[in-house]
Amino acid sequence: MTSAVRVGVLGCGNVGGALVSLLAREANAIEARTGIRLEITRVAVRDLDKPRPPELNRAVLTTDPNAVVTADDVDVVVEIMGVLDPADELLRAALAAGKPVVTANKELLATRGVDLFAAAAAAGRDLLFEAAVGGGIPLIRPLRESLAGEPIARIMGIVNGTTNFILTRMTEDGATYEDALTEAQRLGYAEPDPTADVGGFDAGAKVAILASIAFGVGVSLDDVYCEGITKITATDIAFARRLGYVVKLLGIAEQVDGQIGVRVHPAMVPATHPLASVRDSFNAVFIEGDAVGELMLYGRGAGAMPTSSALLGDLLDAAHNLRQGGAGRAPVLSTAKLRSVDDLRSQYYLALDVADRPGVLAAVAGVLGNHGVSIQSMEQQGLGDEARLVFITHVAREADVQKTLRDLESLDAVRKIGGLLRVIGDEK
Amino acid sequence: MTSAVRVGVLGCGNVGGALVSLLAREANAIEARTGIRLEITRVAVRDLDKPRPPELNRAVLTTDPNAVVTADDVDVVVEIMGVLDPADELLRAALAAGKPVVTANKELLATRGVDLFAAAAAAGRDLLFEAAVGGGIPLIRPLRESLAGEPIARIMGIVNGTTNFILTRMTEDGATYEDALTEAQRLGYAEPDPTADVGGFDAGAKVAILASIAFGVGVSLDDVYCEGITKITATDIAFARRLGYVVKLLGIAEQVDGQIGVRVHPAMVPATHPLASVRDSFNAVFIEGDAVGELMLYGRGAGAMPTSSALLGDLLDAAHNLRQGGAGRAPVLSTAKLRSVDDLRSQYYLALDVADRPGVLAAVAGVLGNHGVSIQSMEQQGLGDEARLVFITHVAREADVQKTLRDLESLDAVRKIGGLLRVIGDEK
Repeated sequence: MTSAVRVGVLGCGNVGGALVSLLAREANAIEARTGIRLEITRVAVRDLDKPRPPELNRAVLTTDPNAVVTADDVDVVVEIMGVLDPADELLRAALAAGKPVVTANKELLATRGVDLFAAAAAAGRDLLFEAAVGGGIPLIRPLRESLAGEPIARIMGIVNGTTNFILTRMTEDGATYEDALTEAQRLGYAEPDPTADVGGFDAGAKVAILASIAFGVGVSLDDVYCEGITKITATDIAFARRLGYVVKLLGIAEQVDGQIGVRVHPAMVPATHPLASVRDSFNAVFIEGDAVGELMLYGRGAGAMPTSSALLGDLLDAAHNLRQGGAGRAPVLSTAKLRSVDDLRSQYYLALDVADRPGVLAAVAGVLGNHGVSIQSMEQQGLGDEARLVFITHVAREADVQKTLRDLESLDAVRKIGGLLRVIGDEK
Repeated sequence: MTSAVRVGVLGCGNVGGALVSLLAREANAIEARTGIRLEITRVAVRDLDKPRPPELNRAVLTTDPNAVVTADDVDVVVEIMGVLDPADELLRAALAAGKPVVTANKELLATRGVDLFAAAAAAGRDLLFEAAVGGGIPLIRPLRESLAGEPIARIMGIVNGTTNFILTRMTEDGATYEDALTEAQRLGYAEPDPTADVGGFDAGAKVAILASIAFGVGVSLDDVYCEGITKITATDIAFARRLGYVVKLLGIAEQVDGQIGVRVHPAMVPATHPLASVRDSFNAVFIEGDAVGELMLYGRGAGAMPTSSALLGDLLDAAHNLRQGGAGRAPVLSTAKLRSVDDLRSQYYLALDVADRPGVLAAVAGVLGNHGVSIQSMEQQGLGDEARLVFITHVAREADVQKTLRDLESLDAVRKIGGLLRVIGDEK
């Protein structure tokens, strides 16, 4: 029994083009295995004259996305425009017209996800978004379905390939941050303005989405503490390595005492931890559950083909559910009780450039002590008339560490506060 | 909107007990997040007097499993008896009575899966089995759903925790095979009769199931070439390490020229490959797809709690689908065109103990040459009046290598044929 499901596509850039090609190539195999024939009937683009994949019937092209979401010959809508507006209105219009939607739009989900989920629930139609986080890695479906009953304690993800590539180059080749960023830009991994990646905001949007699904609460990008990798130096990485750690930018969502904490920051990960071996532009999400124990889902977190694979998986899901006359399981999101990052308790790595003169160490140690931040180990390296002090603290409260940093900045002898890294415990 | 879904359980050993406890603890949270309340209404056991988890209402116990699968107050059946019969008949009876079934029974699926899937399709009810492979790792659902449209080229899995534990101890502590096996038995990872694990048959059943789902064809354990780890020595592992490899027992399913090859054997995995860092009793499945690229799904492959987590995920899926009045997507299995292991083309590692006298190397090299097996590198180590010869071949055909082994066995100077390892290419 085959049923044709007609697909309307919003946006046909790299990812959209890859989806069109993949679908054309696999349509017969998919039909044989699933009984579903996916046909692209409308594609909204901005420029009708641009080159498109040879598999695309140009007669389906239109410059009017509104016509796609309301068309009688479109059963399911895929959105890969990647902007907030008009994507938001278009997806709502599609849902209101009874069409399930598949989207890769992480910004939209991380800022207006709660409202969009409500619109999907009201319409009784699917809103699927596997492609929004971790490219082709199955993350959202396992969290929504396989782990629907699992008491998840924590999720830690390497969810930004650009920064993982930069940190890998710094770790393995001893590159400086600037050189590694330049290489990432040359290879097309980083944008000319890399702020969204290196500032941790792209990872922040993704971890907001993961937190929402894993914990069943509405978390938006505004709720995420975001700290990037721009201050990480070769010294920090070398020091971490000597202690048996690798520096990674992690997106972390955790449940502590009934509160949900969501944050992005560089961290020292034990070299034996599965996340430590995630190299280059690969992504991985590490999940700790009370029953399931430790899981890691690893793969290509970006790229046109992996992303189109995730879109295709969602399309088949939506098509199946539509044929069944409804929607799959939708997340029920309650209001999150958020945990401030100030309440985080962690070990910290702290690097300071200070004047190399008597009394400086005493002054610095005094500031730490004043805020109850206790030192586990310290190392001093000479740098001409400066010295670099590197501390690993015992477990301390984030708010106390931040106060410590502010006081250290005002010390005359402190020239520069370098990297601050939170240490991921090996015990978990 | 809450609906109660009544669960009948067949078998209440370690895993069943863990499921009962997990369900009792999480029932409220699950209901809040999914709108589904799971209630255990019947549990079939062999011995009514055995201790059971305190959360279990003993009034639901029965020694009659047939009464469970046909009971009016059972909506979904979970089978964790772990034997072929009567599990097979019970699951068929449950499906015939309109009840979806959830099972962890890998033997049943790997030997009679095709018939059981047909029974589920005929009944229009779910047959779910996430717990049968890889414990709590979401594997089956991502393969069935997320990757339903993905052209999968190859799956390589570390799917037996016992052998991975043994190989890890041999690699990291220099333990002998015998000592590592004894330790695994002491820790409860290995059975008193370890044949199913160390002979590769447990992994064979699991990779048969994975191959069926990934490629949409019926593959049974009989179709799987199974070779275990009993011949692996510390020498093999040390030699592999020196060449930059780690020895792992892999279950491999691949599509080559329209044929499906499925095999289990020890292999040399490049140390930089994600599978190389899967240590101790952890499991992982590495998936190569044309579109999605490389994926790895990692976690606890066994244990009562991880397994019960997988069962719970399936139960919620079955409950949701039942509420929708039907079943989720079932695999459509066509008949597999199987590729004989004889046609495998690989590099090989081969270790031989030979008499240390003139002419032996020439004789051995002559046998390899006679079968067109060409040598990439060779190393000779003295062992008193014996010598050990270790070869890495260029890419050769399995059938030729097997003929080579038979001829080598008949050479007078060859005392023992040691480890044979296939080398996993780094190039993919």
